[in-house]
Amino acid sequence: MTEFAPLYSQDVACMRYSAIRRMAKLAMQPDIIGFAAGTPSAETFPAEEIRRITASILETDAKGALQYGLTLGYAGLIDAVCHFSQARRTINCARDEICITSGSQQAVDLIGRLFLDPGDVVLVELPSYIGGISAFRNLQAELVGVRQAPDGIEIDDLVARIEACRREGKKTKLLYVIPNFQNPSGLTISPPKRRALLEVASRYGLLIIEDDPYGEVCFDPATASDLRPIKSMDTEGRVIYLSTFSKILAAGLRVGWIVAAKPVIEKLDLVKQSTDLCGGMLDQRIVAECLRLGVVERQLPRIREFYRQKCQVMLASLDQSMPSEIQWTRPAGGLFLWIELPESLDSEAILPEAIERARVIYVPGQPFHVDDAGRNTLRVAFSKESEDNIRAGIHRLAQIFKHHLE
Amino acid sequence: MTEFAPLYSQDVACMRYSAIRRMAKLAMQPDIIGFAAGTPSAETFPAEEIRRITASILETDAKGALQYGLTLGYAGLIDAVCHFSQARRTINCARDEICITSGSQQAVDLIGRLFLDPGDVVLVELPSYIGGISAFRNLQAELVGVRQAPDGIEIDDLVARIEACRREGKKTKLLYVIPNFQNPSGLTISPPKRRALLEVASRYGLLIIEDDPYGEVCFDPATASDLRPIKSMDTEGRVIYLSTFSKILAAGLRVGWIVAAKPVIEKLDLVKQSTDLCGGMLDQRIVAECLRLGVVERQLPRIREFYRQKCQVMLASLDQSMPSEIQWTRPAGGLFLWIELPESLDSEAILPEAIERARVIYVPGQPFHVDDAGRNTLRVAFSKESEDNIRAGIHRLAQIFKHHLE
Repeated sequence: MTEFAPLYSQDVACMRYSAIRRMAKLAMQPDIIGFAAGTPSAETFPAEEIRRITASILETDAKGALQYGLTLGYAGLIDAVCHFSQARRTINCARDEICITSGSQQAVDLIGRLFLDPGDVVLVELPSYIGGISAFRNLQAELVGVRQAPDGIEIDDLVARIEACRREGKKTKLLYVIPNFQNPSGLTISPPKRRALLEVASRYGLLIIEDDPYGEVCFDPATASDLRPIKSMDTEGRVIYLSTFSKILAAGLRVGWIVAAKPVIEKLDLVKQSTDLCGGMLDQRIVAECLRLGVVERQLPRIREFYRQKCQVMLASLDQSMPSEIQWTRPAGGLFLWIELPESLDSEAILPEAIERARVIYVPGQPFHVDDAGRNTLRVAFSKESEDNIRAGIHRLAQIFKHHLE
Repeated sequence: MTEFAPLYSQDVACMRYSAIRRMAKLAMQPDIIGFAAGTPSAETFPAEEIRRITASILETDAKGALQYGLTLGYAGLIDAVCHFSQARRTINCARDEICITSGSQQAVDLIGRLFLDPGDVVLVELPSYIGGISAFRNLQAELVGVRQAPDGIEIDDLVARIEACRREGKKTKLLYVIPNFQNPSGLTISPPKRRALLEVASRYGLLIIEDDPYGEVCFDPATASDLRPIKSMDTEGRVIYLSTFSKILAAGLRVGWIVAAKPVIEKLDLVKQSTDLCGGMLDQRIVAECLRLGVVERQLPRIREFYRQKCQVMLASLDQSMPSEIQWTRPAGGLFLWIELPESLDSEAILPEAIERARVIYVPGQPFHVDDAGRNTLRVAFSKESEDNIRAGIHRLAQIFKHHLE
């Protein structure tokens, strides 16, 4: 048998299945209460409307929907996404500033490939999204973590990190932020800080990747103006905005998008071409029709209410059962919240016990940290489980943590 | 406005739209006869059956079809593809040796990312598939071309190239071949040469990427045994087999697959995870059902006959109208053939005239060559146009070439 190890590329050679992915299999056992996966609830997908729309597409234009399409995306979807970004996200964009992607994960990966050489620095929040971290790591980027306060990324720490990188002669090219109900922390960057980020990016010649999968999943629409994308204030083309229909329509359709300056989109076209030729054409037409017919728009209030209730149940359960030494965030949107245990506890070490004795699974917080910190933290998603299961799961988890604090 | 150029990664900075992609827009004019695009004909897609199957999937399991899935692919599709690879391609594979991809283009890119560091050598046929070439180039691989004879890649030249690379201290990791009705040449590698490739790969520690999008599009099923995949003779796990449903079912569904040794698939899982989390779940279910219900199997005779007739018309038109100084291949399957003009003619220089005066578009042959040769060659696809258009287009093209030979 061939020895493959000497043939792997340098960045792949050391890749191992993470503890998280190994444990993901456990989450599939039927009696496990799943707080781990950050996936949207399939109950929120408008199945009946997607069924009708899909039938109509395959009735009227099957040949188009089943044939190759353009690399940057189906023109009808680009139009609809352009309008959606303007109307709902207040981003003043044009059609040639948009690239449709296979979910935002592909967007993060393509942007990384577009800008990063080995050793280039990407600044990320502490903690940050694991999928972003691994996409940048796979490109051999150096990841530098920036602290977060309750109102989002700390600007002073960001500047200090950039200055330190510069002194060491490193190229700081990208700042990756998830401004709304961040994955994993649930925190939101305040409006003044959003403006400050643009100033810092301009001063130091950085680009900002603004990853916004959750912006429309805000529990109180009255606060929506606080969620104005950084991209909407960007006058220099410095922000690359990413979003997705995975949370507000259907995750399995794999449709996300990028809004960026036209020269960036033109290069992305070339990079994307050799990675997949084009995205799924049927998926893109379904989403375009869902936008055109107002399905997405009608979904939004339902989805917000759906996750708001679940979040409220989880927060109430935490308030009731967790010991006072344990802290957590109170997100105003999104799918998860963040728990901080006393420094002495290790959430990864406790997890097997949580699974075995409490039948609850969560994600340990360390892998979200590029600085190896966060061993006493964990992410719990309220998106998947029923209200009863959320109550039972949090209660049982509290017992486990209490036991470790005795 | 931000100056993006200094921020691009080294391999992207120099990317430009190729002449081919710029000209692709011309091909969209309604009166142009298109011999350029190597896309399958949408007439071959079983639209009615896909419509019925899709409705039934969204009727019975919308939640599953619209939710995230596993990175390596939907289990039901992995089963079906495993069976298809065994039954139709005589590949003795197991389920854990399969990865579903977004078309084979993603497969080529993922394999490249898995194995290649900058400077590593990939051996490719002269000419070879442009999408493969650019995927490897984007990873900063060095591409070394190997000559082809009418019965496929020349083994002596392959060995000489490998030896030369070794003398120069270069790492020759991968050999990329398209054994059946090659894109772009239409040539097929003979059975003895397939066995010889395995021996060479084993002797020099190479892996073979066997890209087989056209194997099932063979015009004479009696010759199918000559098309036995190299992978089916592979006892060392040295062959990574790629194929796709783009040509035999529907290109827009973006479903391809990889068959490789289990350790390779395990690493691919990790690499793919950070590039797209998972492929389109609805697409994957549709293809799985098309396999399970025999739709693909029933398609095959129709598709072979469809392209065989078009190929025959093109060959007859070439025989009738081309001057004797011009040569072409006589493919036994696939979607295109390869024309060689006398050395003095430059197919790229002639193309604007072909478009303007003959209203015919083709792909110049040079970009398929990694050694800068092939300026006197071109690829013509018979897949898209009607028989009348094929006749008219070849006749008009012949006039243009004749004019240049006077």
